[in-house]
Formats: sequence, C-alpha cells, structure tokens
Amino acid sequence: MIYFYTGIRMNSHILLIDCNDRKGLVFSITKVLFEHNVNIIRNGEFVDHDKSHFYMRTEFSGAFDTGKLIDDLKQTLPENARIRLTGKRKKNIVVLATKEHHCLGDLLIRNEFGDLNAQILAVISNHEKLRRLTEQAGVPYHYISHENLTREQHEQKVLDIIGQYGPEYIVLAKYMRVLTPSFIKAFPERIINIHHSFLPAFIGANPYRQAFNRGVKIIGATAHFVNEDLDEGPIIAQNVIPVDHTYDDETMATAGRDVEKNVLSQALKLVFDEKVIVTGNKTIIFD
Amino acid sequence: MIYFYTGIRMNSHILLIDCNDRKGLVFSITKVLFEHNVNIIRNGEFVDHDKSHFYMRTEFSGAFDTGKLIDDLKQTLPENARIRLTGKRKKNIVVLATKEHHCLGDLLIRNEFGDLNAQILAVISNHEKLRRLTEQAGVPYHYISHENLTREQHEQKVLDIIGQYGPEYIVLAKYMRVLTPSFIKAFPERIINIHHSFLPAFIGANPYRQAFNRGVKIIGATAHFVNEDLDEGPIIAQNVIPVDHTYDDETMATAGRDVEKNVLSQALKLVFDEKVIVTGNKTIIFD
Amino acid sequence: MIYFYTGIRMNSHILLIDCNDRKGLVFSITKVLFEHNVNIIRNGEFVDHDKSHFYMRTEFSGAFDTGKLIDDLKQTLPENARIRLTGKRKKNIVVLATKEHHCLGDLLIRNEFGDLNAQILAVISNHEKLRRLTEQAGVPYHYISHENLTREQHEQKVLDIIGQYGPEYIVLAKYMRVLTPSFIKAFPERIINIHHSFLPAFIGANPYRQAFNRGVKIIGATAHFVNEDLDEGPIIAQNVIPVDHTYDDETMATAGRDVEKNVLSQALKLVFDEKVIVTGNKTIIFD
Amino acid sequence: MIYFYTGIRMNSHILLIDCNDRKGLVFSITKVLFEHNVNIIRNGEFVDHDKSHFYMRTEFSGAFDTGKLIDDLKQTLPENARIRLTGKRKKNIVVLATKEHHCLGDLLIRNEFGDLNAQILAVISNHEKLRRLTEQAGVPYHYISHENLTREQHEQKVLDIIGQYGPEYIVLAKYMRVLTPSFIKAFPERIINIHHSFLPAFIGANPYRQAFNRGVKIIGATAHFVNEDLDEGPIIAQNVIPVDHTYDDETMATAGRDVEKNVLSQALKLVFDEKVIVTGNKTIIFD
Repeated sequence: MIYFYTGIRMNSHILLIDCNDRKGLVFSITKVLFEHNVNIIRNGEFVDHDKSHFYMRTEFSGAFDTGKLIDDLKQTLPENARIRLTGKRKKNIVVLATKEHHCLGDLLIRNEFGDLNAQILAVISNHEKLRRLTEQAGVPYHYISHENLTREQHEQKVLDIIGQYGPEYIVLAKYMRVLTPSFIKAFPERIINIHHSFLPAFIGANPYRQAFNRGVKIIGATAHFVNEDLDEGPIIAQNVIPVDHTYDDETMATAGRDVEKNVLSQALKLVFDEKVIVTGNKTIIFD
Repeated sequence: MIYFYTGIRMNSHILLIDCNDRKGLVFSITKVLFEHNVNIIRNGEFVDHDKSHFYMRTEFSGAFDTGKLIDDLKQTLPENARIRLTGKRKKNIVVLATKEHHCLGDLLIRNEFGDLNAQILAVISNHEKLRRLTEQAGVPYHYISHENLTREQHEQKVLDIIGQYGPEYIVLAKYMRVLTPSFIKAFPERIINIHHSFLPAFIGANPYRQAFNRGVKIIGATAHFVNEDLDEGPIIAQNVIPVDHTYDDETMATAGRDVEKNVLSQALKLVFDEKVIVTGNKTIIFD
Repeated sequence: MIYFYTGIRMNSHILLIDCNDRKGLVFSITKVLFEHNVNIIRNGEFVDHDKSHFYMRTEFSGAFDTGKLIDDLKQTLPENARIRLTGKRKKNIVVLATKEHHCLGDLLIRNEFGDLNAQILAVISNHEKLRRLTEQAGVPYHYISHENLTREQHEQKVLDIIGQYGPEYIVLAKYMRVLTPSFIKAFPERIINIHHSFLPAFIGANPYRQAFNRGVKIIGATAHFVNEDLDEGPIIAQNVIPVDHTYDDETMATAGRDVEKNVLSQALKLVFDEKVIVTGNKTIIFD
Repeated sequence: MIYFYTGIRMNSHILLIDCNDRKGLVFSITKVLFEHNVNIIRNGEFVDHDKSHFYMRTEFSGAFDTGKLIDDLKQTLPENARIRLTGKRKKNIVVLATKEHHCLGDLLIRNEFGDLNAQILAVISNHEKLRRLTEQAGVPYHYISHENLTREQHEQKVLDIIGQYGPEYIVLAKYMRVLTPSFIKAFPERIINIHHSFLPAFIGANPYRQAFNRGVKIIGATAHFVNEDLDEGPIIAQNVIPVDHTYDDETMATAGRDVEKNVLSQALKLVFDEKVIVTGNKTIIFD
C-alpha cells in the first residue's frame, strides 16, 4: 500500500513510513531527503523492538520531484515498507450522527471556523433532529430513516449518499447504529468512532448505566478506528473525568458529553494532521 | 449493626447513619444532636432517590452520654437504620504484601510519621523480600510461605497471625494471592485491596499486559473493598495516567506503581477518616 | 440582601443561606422547612471555622407560602443572614465577545439544545466577526465598535443594549476589553469571565505568551466573577492541560481553547444551578 | 561543554546534542552513527524554529571508539554544538532536606529498591528530625544546624560535606533554605528543587497559604533546576490536583505532599535517564 502525490509539490509535506526495522534506517531515509534538498521541519521515529518494526514521521518543506522521491525511498527501504506522502491539507469527511447534538455541534463550529483541519461535506442521520443545527452551519443534511428497513437496506442508502461525496474519512459522531462488516471493510482505517466509555471498560450498550451500576469513580470516552470487532478497533485518544456517588446514569451522561466531544476532536486532529499510523489493533501517534 | 462508644466522650466524634429515606430526617437527627448540646463541625447528607435511602455523616464535638445519644437516635430513626459512632482515632491494621515494595514502602513511611490515620501492627507476606523494608521501619514482619501448602492451609496460617493482632482493617498492598470466600466473609467491609487497573477494565491477571495488548491511552488503579466476587467489590478510589505507544507492559507497570500507591493511600485515608459508607457494591464517600 | 419569591410555589426550589455560625443552625433551618411540610431533596452545609461563618444550600420540593417561609427563617437566623430562595429555572444572560468563536460557539449550541440552564438573550461584540455564528443560532447580535470612542463612551453603548434585555448575568466569552469599575459595580456577582490562564499565574495580557516564555509544563483556564480588581475576582472553576517544549504560544492557545470553553461552561452550570455562594474573593461551591 | 566517555563502550549509550539548526543535521549525525556501526534504539529531535536551534537525543547500543565518535560528530556539527555522551548508569546524588519527610522518604525507598536510577550518597539536613528515616535506609545523615551561623557559614559547612561525596546532582527535597548565588553557580544545571506550587503561581514563601487566600480550585507542584533567580529556574515537571472551599492551607499542604513527591521523582527520572536538555530558562524533554 503506497499513497503518494504526483508531480512536484511546494510547501509543507508529511511522510509516514513503517517497515521492518534494520540498522541505519533513519540515516537512509534522511539521506534520501537530503539528496532531494528538502528541509526537515520535524522528525519522529519509533521502533517496536518486540516486533522489530520501524515507524517514522517526517514533516518537511521544499520543492522536489514526488515520483523520484518515492522511488528513491522504495529502493532504500525494506520490501514491506508502507510509504504515505501527503501535504498539509484539509481532509474531506462525512459525519454520521443520530440524535445527540454535542459532538456534531462541536465539529460544525470547528468546521465553520477552520480549526478542524477538515471539511465536512455532509451530515447523514437516521433522525431529523439535527437538521437545523447542521443546515444553519451551511452543511447538507441527509435524513435516512432506518424504519421499515433491514440493516443492510438502510446501510445501502447511507452508502449511496456517502458515495456522492467520496469522503476520505467517515466520522461517527454518536451514531448509535452498529455497522455491518461489509460497510466497515469498505473504509479500512477510515472510519472514526467516539465511544462513551474508557474502553475496554463498559463495552456494548449503555456504558453510563453500566458505570453507574458498577459504582466507578471515573468515567471517560474513547475515540477509535472502527474495525470488524465492535468496540475493539485501534484506540486513538481517551480521556476521563471523576464522578462520585451523587451521579446517576443521566448526570454521568451529561458530564461525559464534554469528554466525548473533546476526545473526538482531539483524535480527529491527530488523524487529519497525519500523526497516526495504525498497526494491528493499535495506533502509533507522533507528537 | 450498631457500632458505638460507651461512656461519655470528649473531643471530636463521627456519626455515620444510613436508613430508609423519609421526610424530616436531617431535622430529627440534628434535633437529637442539639438536645445533647454538641457542636456540629461538619455535616454531609446524600439521598439515593432511586432506592429511597438516606445517608448522613456528621462530625461534632462536645461532651455527651454515648448510650443516651444512640438510644435517642434509634427512637427517631427508621428501624433499618445503621448507626456508627466513632472518635477520630487511628485504626489498627495489618498489611498483606507479596514482593512489590512501592505500596508497602509508602504505607510504612506514612505510618512512621503519623499521616496514615492508622497504626500498622504487622506485615504478612508469602515472600521474604520485604522483611528489611518492614523491620527497619519498626514493624513486625511475618513470612508465611505458601509453598507445599494448599490455599486453605496457607490462609489458615495467615489468619492465625492476623488473629494475634486483631486489626480493624486488612490492607492488601499488592498481595498477589486470591483469598478464599471464607477468609473474605470473616472480614466484611474490612479488607481493602489495590488493583492495578481502572476497574472494570482488565479484570484478572496481568492487567498491564492486557492494557498493552489493547493499546489503551490511559492506565490506572482502583482501590476497593474485597468481597466474594473477585475484582468486583465496592470501589473507593480510582485514578489514571496517560500512556502512549512507546510504553510496553513493563514501563506501564513502572508508571502505574505511582498511581497504585497514591490511590491506595487516598482510599485508606477516606476509610480511616470514617468518610465511607458501603452500600451494596458501591460506596458513598463524604467530603 | 434577601432574594425571594412571592406567592406559593410548587416543584423544586433552592435555598442558599449564609450567616454567622452558631450551634444548632442546621437544626433550626431544617425545623422551619419541616414545619412548612416540604421535602428536602439535597442538603449541603459548610462552616468556615476561621471566620465562624455558616453556608448552606438546600434543594426541596413541595407547596409552601414563600413569604411565611422567609419570615420564619429570618426569625431563626442571625441578623447578618443572607437568604436566597429561587426555583430551578433558566437564567437570562447576555454574552459579550470579541473575535474568538470557541467559547461563544459552545454556549450557543448549549443554548439551542437547552443544556446551559440559561437563555442567551443577545450577544454583544466590538467586532462583526461572530455575527453569522450568532444569528444562525437565532440569537440577536449587536455590533458596538469601540473605534473612535473613549472606553466610557463605548461602555455606555454596551450598557444601553444590556439595559434593553435586563439579563441576570453577563458572560464575558473572551471579551478582550477591560471593564471600568462603574460597569462592574453595576453588576455585583453577576459578571462571569473566562481567563486564559490558571490564575493567579500569568495575570494580564498574553498569558499564553507568558506561559511559553516561562517554559511551563501545564497551561490552564480560570472562570471567575469579575470584581474591581482585574483578574482577582472570586474563582469559580479552573482546569489545566499538559504542554511541552514542542508548543509555541500559538499552539498553546489552540490547545487552551478547549480548556477555556469547558471551564467556562462548567462554571456557568454551577452558577445557574445556584450552587455557588460568593464570599469575599472566594466561592463556596456545593455539589 | 563536552562530556564524554573514554575508551570503547558496550551496551546502551545516550547521545544528547544541541546546536544551531541547519539542513541535513539528522542525516549527518545518523551517518556518523551508522559508520561507527552502532544500533539506534530510539531517536528524538526537536527544532526551535524561532531560535533556529536543533536538539537531538539518541539511544544506541554497540561497541565503538568513543573518542573517534566524538571527533567525527564535532567535525560534522556546527561550532556551537554541545555534545553529551553517557551510558545508562545510576547517577550519584546528595539530598538536602529540612524537616518534611514525604519527598525524602519516597526517594529513600526508590533508592533502596533501585528504581530511582540514582544512588543517594548522603542526606544533609539543618534539622535532626529525618535522621532515623535516613539511617534506617542505610544512608549517611549529616546534621548541619544553621543556628548561630551566617548563611554563608552554614552553606560552607554543607559544601564541605557535599565535597566529600562529589555528587553529580544535588536534590533539594523540601530544603527550606534559600541558597546563595555562589552555591548555585558551583553546580550549574545540577541542582533540582521541588517547589510546592504550580509555578509561576505563588512564588515565594507559604504557597499553600497564598493559594488558600486566593481561593484557587487547583494546587500543584513544580520540579525545576535551580538557578540564581529564585523560583525562576528551568521547569522540568509539574502536576496539579483539584481542591475546593473545604480545604484550608493545612489540608491543602497535606494533599499537596503527594503531588510534590510524585513530581519530584518524575523529574529526577527524566534527568537521570538523560532525557532533559536545559536551554536558557527552559527544558527540552525527550520521550
């Protein structure tokens, strides 16, 4: 899997590499970059010594021949290298929601003022409730009711809308329906969900109710990539807040909403800034 | 269950009450206290409206007749009332440990300088490793090897030692053996454990390994009362710290140790200061 | 200073009392409430022993004669008692902002979906930039330029607009102008500001620049009531986030914005839910 | 300033470099390491673009000629480069304390069990109070009373003891005396202090009293290198905890002690693991 630009690019670029580890990789990679005469702005590496696997993220600027740079990197890197070269640019996304407004509202304001590093192309919901919020922010809203439809039928309608927009990422902003494996397979490492618990605690339905019943003193939220194992995808970001015996499941949910929206936007920022490499069911996250 | 003093007491006292809720309870209780001419220093109440249950903690000072106060309270309170009246005094405790020093070391220093609100009567371990640490702090150390013994035989030896000291609480400071139900039943709401995960995540063995495998971005620790359901007892305190992909299970464990010792001492302080009422599998914790 | 209802009220009520401390206050107050046949839902007290001052917050429900209740309380309480009796209802507020959208945007969404416990009557700004955001949420926007005006002239125009709405609270959502003492005196304990540092660190202008220059490892935000001493008013809520050497003052500001908006909304929730008593330059905050 | 090994070293090494930034530095440095045939275990770089300054930390293993490596690095690096090459080994330290036991006790236990990455050679105090704690852990204790001595006379006696041990670092574990500039100059970037506030808030004496008076909702602690400007040295680590109106300055101090000891040991771990580069009044801290 190789992602790359074509042509010659100016300004700021991000290079993500992962491959088998071996001696001299940083040297080899920075040598290629040096020969292409670019300026390294920031560099991060990580080696998983258990698996002998190497990860690197480089931000650089300057004019260079993209195809040649990729070729030169491929020649110097192990065969299993994944190379991803992108510019610093806004990602195109579609947001799926159900009835809760807090995550969507936060994303819409960030979208409107340009601090999401993404452009929300459309919002799709299985309810009408969030239409006004969405449309007043100038974003198209698609209501696809799930009533009288099988899961597959409903999803096909959602997929049809998504297909019209061709987003790079799909964000589940409290979308309360379980996606089918075929949907998920269609967007590998491209669907991001916010789950309202500090996973793996309280997997499944009603995590705040579960948290209340268990009598925990902290609750939290988890943003993760969605894969075929429900609530088991690679975790991008988590955060928690303290609670006590005076909280019931409703006040926990109220308190938790701020955590949810913060964790989701934090995770999206990391992904859209190309700071995340997914590896197995984990994420490598660069500063 | 009624705990109380006998005789007339001076200085500072703590009254913990829980009972079915009904109108006028705070009024009735404070009326009794007013009639006994004591000074309320601090007062906290909580009503669980779902279960219609009332909880109250009162700190007060002054001279009064303990038996009469209890009688008067019993007359004014619902039949199912639990009343606990104690002074502000150090609790007698026995600590069980295995090989890890961080929680025990922290408790021994707090014990030595009087900021634990408890007196450690003895340490019992199934290893010799912590003897020097314990004895240099002036606390007796009992090594009870579990080798060549059944779980029941080993526990009986531990119980024999505990019996010599008659502690009010047993603290499991990283005691890595599972207790039998009969041991636990012998000390209801009197055994406190530190578990090295933010429960209910990572129940069972090797939570740091589990956390590493799951790729979480936060790890934590939980102090809880031990009941017959392993890792399911009422939670007293929890805390977490952030981790990232650069942590393996060993560095997670190292980082987690500080959380473990802090959460354990925080929970002990709450319990020994009589700020905790256990109710079902939960705790009510007063400021 | 006594605030109270007139007539007989149903449903949920909040009573805030503070006065000189003396023996039996909880008893006296709950006796009055008991005699008025109301149900106490929640009760909190605090005694400042240094100053021998008593604070109490009671939530209760039931039908009662407001005037009689206040009279009975006044008869039983010390002369300097401040009594505040209100219902659980939305507060009317006016928001002042300048050019930053994050706090205002968050408040507008909370306003739209009813989770602010307040109603935003209007937004006033000395710039045009936030008009679209405000008006699309259905809230009137008043642009009062400060150009070519003295501070007093500008403030008078702002006061005129505020006067039209008669809000109970004025919220400074990143309003970057210093208020005059006469403005502040007109709204005692009724102006709430969000300051972008963990006060008292980095008082004054450009706190993120100051934080960057000092090389701190945490930054934060503070919500406080505004009084005549700039940045010295009673603190309601604070929170912080970690930063490191890779942050410059701009990325600190970006990261800080989420803290700012969370702390502001947390503080507003406390104030509008009548959980805050101001005393000198401090706040007593009930659960 | 160049620190280095002599001879050929095996096992794990740490290389810290900082110098003016220029194109190709990572490439040049990793080229030298590649040519010396060592294995890079971990690499971190940071460029301060404002000041055009480059910082790098490399952990590597393998056998090599130290002198030759340093020479090769010097030839490839800008003239102002600071190079520091060390092994992963325990640092020798002397701890100064006064009467508070919590930080010292924590360090002594870490010292005893080898998780401090340092060896405490001796403890010096201007009180007798901590002698038992120190000596029972097998560490020499020097009591140097300040009574009837000028500041300079007392310090000279302390310096004499320090001189006997020749430590690499001096740790102020709640040492409540102000050091003279000449003392500080004698140990540049080698004295680490724990200050009981989240600096720069509450500089000076009695920070918990100041925090109480200001009514803050968070308190904290700061570990920093000591330079000639009191409380103004480069910050290594900070942390905070929430407090509320029920805390007075004493309970704040009690709560703060856990933060102090945690922050101090966290900072020491960073410094002793060679993860910190001091630059001006700031620190660069590598993962």
